[in-house]
Amino acid sequence: MPNGEFSLISRYFDRFPNARRDVVTGIGDDCALLAVPDKQWLAISTDTLVSGIHFLADIDPRDLACKALAVNLSDLAAMGADPAWLTLSLTLPEVNESWLEAFSDSLFERLSYYDMQLIGGDTTRGPLSMTLGIHGFVPVGRALRRSGAQPGDWIYVTGTLGDSAAGLAILQQKLQVCDSRQAEYLISRHLHPTPRILQGQALRGLASSAIDLSDGLASDLGHILKASGCGARIELSRLPLSGTLTACVSHEQALNWALAGGEDYELCFTVPERNRGALDVALGNLGVDWRCIGRITAAGGLNYSMDDKPVTVELKGYDHFTEQ
Amino acid sequence: MPNGEFSLISRYFDRFPNARRDVVTGIGDDCALLAVPDKQWLAISTDTLVSGIHFLADIDPRDLACKALAVNLSDLAAMGADPAWLTLSLTLPEVNESWLEAFSDSLFERLSYYDMQLIGGDTTRGPLSMTLGIHGFVPVGRALRRSGAQPGDWIYVTGTLGDSAAGLAILQQKLQVCDSRQAEYLISRHLHPTPRILQGQALRGLASSAIDLSDGLASDLGHILKASGCGARIELSRLPLSGTLTACVSHEQALNWALAGGEDYELCFTVPERNRGALDVALGNLGVDWRCIGRITAAGGLNYSMDDKPVTVELKGYDHFTEQ
Repeated sequence: MPNGEFSLISRYFDRFPNARRDVVTGIGDDCALLAVPDKQWLAISTDTLVSGIHFLADIDPRDLACKALAVNLSDLAAMGADPAWLTLSLTLPEVNESWLEAFSDSLFERLSYYDMQLIGGDTTRGPLSMTLGIHGFVPVGRALRRSGAQPGDWIYVTGTLGDSAAGLAILQQKLQVCDSRQAEYLISRHLHPTPRILQGQALRGLASSAIDLSDGLASDLGHILKASGCGARIELSRLPLSGTLTACVSHEQALNWALAGGEDYELCFTVPERNRGALDVALGNLGVDWRCIGRITAAGGLNYSMDDKPVTVELKGYDHFTEQ
Repeated sequence: MPNGEFSLISRYFDRFPNARRDVVTGIGDDCALLAVPDKQWLAISTDTLVSGIHFLADIDPRDLACKALAVNLSDLAAMGADPAWLTLSLTLPEVNESWLEAFSDSLFERLSYYDMQLIGGDTTRGPLSMTLGIHGFVPVGRALRRSGAQPGDWIYVTGTLGDSAAGLAILQQKLQVCDSRQAEYLISRHLHPTPRILQGQALRGLASSAIDLSDGLASDLGHILKASGCGARIELSRLPLSGTLTACVSHEQALNWALAGGEDYELCFTVPERNRGALDVALGNLGVDWRCIGRITAAGGLNYSMDDKPVTVELKGYDHFTEQ
């Protein structure tokens, strides 16, 4: 059977470097068969990345694999879930073996790091795009959600915001950064975001709500507010900006990207007053900063202050169907 | 937040017409949260459909939703699994509300029929394509697989073969059929294949192996043979051809499409001699014919006979990366 598609799939993706015991049957049958552990909920998310929309058409396939996985892992992190399995549906304009080798090597390296297993997928011909389906576990009743924020809760974010947008601007030659180490840092934050898996798990039982920052703080926090029926006030002077970002762009541009640049893949979460001490202990040894940036209010949508004085900000998140 | 994408998603896809009790959290958070029942394995499959490759660019969106779901359900059928949840990642070139309404109406009608729930997805802008992720349950240890066929087992298929390829040929104006009822039947078999969910479940404990026929009998049976380490002999005179197909094309063309036309979404399965009586009972009341078309052999690949005399057939299944 001169069946190029099947041999192509099996050559690059049918590897079992870290076979998990909960995978009864992986790649190679009509379905994967999985055994979900007792007392765990299954958390499922899916994200599509399209060439020219979600990544630059000339992206290095190693970077693309990294980023595609990180984007999906970030959704698990936002629920406090532990990653387990991945499905990959890859649409390719042609069979390019060096591209496939680089992409799959990078993907399996990342899967191994997270003790995940590729359990299935599909390879089709068409314009370059991919859809990842990610599956993880969270103990019954302990998942983080968007809907639990209460007036008075404090709003936090992990890491720094806006670096990814600056990195993209450099790649698109819209931003020139002379210091090559600074440029590399910002590009790396765009191409290799770190999903906050450990932080998400540490937040179980402490955070009243959580979301990952894919579209930008303003847009994503808006989802928490809508789901929770609350408002919020963000103190702009508290937004965590990296020294590199503030060295490379104006303060106004840095704030803009921090609020609406998107693709930071940090976590935004809310914590009741009584859990603030426990939060600092839980996140203390995980190697990434976290910062309180505002507070949940009873109503009034999303408002901003600068040095405690109300200010107006006109921003929006990334939206595929609206011109920016 | 003038956020067209999110309101678009929520308007058409955030419906709960048949909320399942095992869905803890459906659409609307970073992940769906699901409770897998005790003593069940989870069966997961994913398939991508690309415009111009897997469906004609001018396909009616109602037909497209039907077909996309059927293609994925067929993978569950081949494992003997019971359908439960769907994720839908939809890539659209533009926001076309009448298209979205027709597509989503048809999808939810089908989901309701199968007592399934849409639990998540993604909408992105790009060339029209979609990736469905389907999830079902099968009792622990009772899944059908490709790998269990033994020499001497009998090979069966459900329904009739080749109708779908004829329907596609009519749509592509490569085949002219004057009788409009005959044309409608064949087109319907292409656009609205019926996944053999009930048959798959009835085969648990009876069939030694199973697969669904997406690429064509020759190609798909080849997967069973490879996974089981066996050969097979198919008696061409036993292939189930519909009266409509044989009335519309030559016998040679009908056989060709039955073996390699693809997209029939019938089941092909193997049954040990001792289970043949029980098989006839199990499938007897499910409304679709089944037929024994050959036998598994110890080795020798896939061979054909016509009226018990060996014949040579040069055919291959559908392969996205090989010119047909």
